[in-house]
Amino acid sequence: MGRVTERRKVLRIRDGAVSSRADTLVAEEPLEIRLNGKPLAITMRTPGDDFALAAGFLVSEGVLATGSDLQNIVYCAGAIADGSNTYNVVDVRTAPGVTIPDITLERNVYTTSSCGLCGKASLDAVRTTTRWPIADTPRLRVAPELLAVLPDRLRESQRVFDRTGGLHAAALFSEDGELLDVREDVGRHNAVDKLVGRALQSGGLPLSRAILLVSGRASFELAQKAVMAGIPMLAAVSAPSSLAVDLAAETGLTLVGFLRGASMNVYAGEDRIALRTAASRG
Amino acid sequence: MGRVTERRKVLRIRDGAVSSRADTLVAEEPLEIRLNGKPLAITMRTPGDDFALAAGFLVSEGVLATGSDLQNIVYCAGAIADGSNTYNVVDVRTAPGVTIPDITLERNVYTTSSCGLCGKASLDAVRTTTRWPIADTPRLRVAPELLAVLPDRLRESQRVFDRTGGLHAAALFSEDGELLDVREDVGRHNAVDKLVGRALQSGGLPLSRAILLVSGRASFELAQKAVMAGIPMLAAVSAPSSLAVDLAAETGLTLVGFLRGASMNVYAGEDRIALRTAASRG
Repeated sequence: MGRVTERRKVLRIRDGAVSSRADTLVAEEPLEIRLNGKPLAITMRTPGDDFALAAGFLVSEGVLATGSDLQNIVYCAGAIADGSNTYNVVDVRTAPGVTIPDITLERNVYTTSSCGLCGKASLDAVRTTTRWPIADTPRLRVAPELLAVLPDRLRESQRVFDRTGGLHAAALFSEDGELLDVREDVGRHNAVDKLVGRALQSGGLPLSRAILLVSGRASFELAQKAVMAGIPMLAAVSAPSSLAVDLAAETGLTLVGFLRGASMNVYAGEDRIALRTAASRG
Repeated sequence: MGRVTERRKVLRIRDGAVSSRADTLVAEEPLEIRLNGKPLAITMRTPGDDFALAAGFLVSEGVLATGSDLQNIVYCAGAIADGSNTYNVVDVRTAPGVTIPDITLERNVYTTSSCGLCGKASLDAVRTTTRWPIADTPRLRVAPELLAVLPDRLRESQRVFDRTGGLHAAALFSEDGELLDVREDVGRHNAVDKLVGRALQSGGLPLSRAILLVSGRASFELAQKAVMAGIPMLAAVSAPSSLAVDLAAETGLTLVGFLRGASMNVYAGEDRIALRTAASRG
């Protein structure tokens, strides 16, 4: 536990000058997530918040929706020679009566027998599977000026923690721009799973008044995680993919990309952006 | 095919000014990879070079090592209502006699019955599975000055293609710094798989004289892919993870991180870096 960073010796080259020193690296270790004893997925993650990661992952996959769906989460003893615990295998037990959806879990993509495999099927699967359809009543309304300051707030909270340059960050903000929670991980999807899992554990799902900010790109997978947790707005510092935009449009998620200071692009759900002037067309 | 980018309408906000225009996004679609008819993995990828992606993925997984291991790769007809092809499912047929390793393929991590799950087991699995142990004879020697120019060469070749800001890039360079191949994808691992797959298809494995450059971070997964293709040097523009460094040290891979102009860190395999002066210790 607590192996968030590790130290390694490094040869440092700066304009031809060479020196040797110790460097801090982000820790990466595999985590196997078991569901009721059955291996379900393996992810490469930064150790820490492992139970939240597992819980959040299972929210994304439509297995868990509230804290009461969860019986408990434990580390499994590893089967290493000496029987010691690697803290890299967790088992999630669902409460009696929780139905496990019949899904094929491979890289978080649903395959259905009705479709060879296509983006549309992935969109439909998320839309029909979510237990928390986006339902922000009254409708969340956020001014661009508020969104503009969020990346700096994320970076300030990151500065304390990330000495490695190797971490993706994800944060939840209130509609007033207050930082609610921030997680960092070597995998962008893990950072979001940890946020969602912590919300589930504290009875905070659905996150129907929250804004999710991610430090990098907005992929389909991240948009899926937002939708499954009932989050109405996803903002990314970098570009979204086509399928992330399509999922947002289909589910009512507001998707903001290239959020850099007062500059941003709104790809879907623009009615949650409080504009002072009507949009000019052209 | 050729759906590398897609157009979507976007609301653009710049310092309070709002306009609507069409934006170019990187395309993202699921790809299911089947091995001899059996579904093996699904990855979210940018369409294009799908056969190379599948072949390269199977090199990483220890299934393929040379072009002769491969019988053929085909798109499977999708099972959509009208029976049309989604071009999102490929089936890789191995040549007669090719042994399929007994591996559990979930997010590219090997699980073995001898270990609950730990980083060390992942390292051992790569080291013992690779058909192309790093064997550059004579030993590759690259000056920092040569490495220093590679990111710019990568970006120049990217500039032509990436209008979306949403793509990860990976490139192969010769020991003289010549750009051999470059691929871009919404997933960093896919870009590397496409490079390796194209090399396999053209009889270029092992890549024992090549330098692999990636535009982002160096994770365990990317280091694994370099090792499995026999690539002796991996350079990343951003940070490596602890497990990537451990894998490099264990397999003899040279791992360079934070490659930014004349500034870089060497995390493993420093004997392939041609230094003009002895390293000062301190």
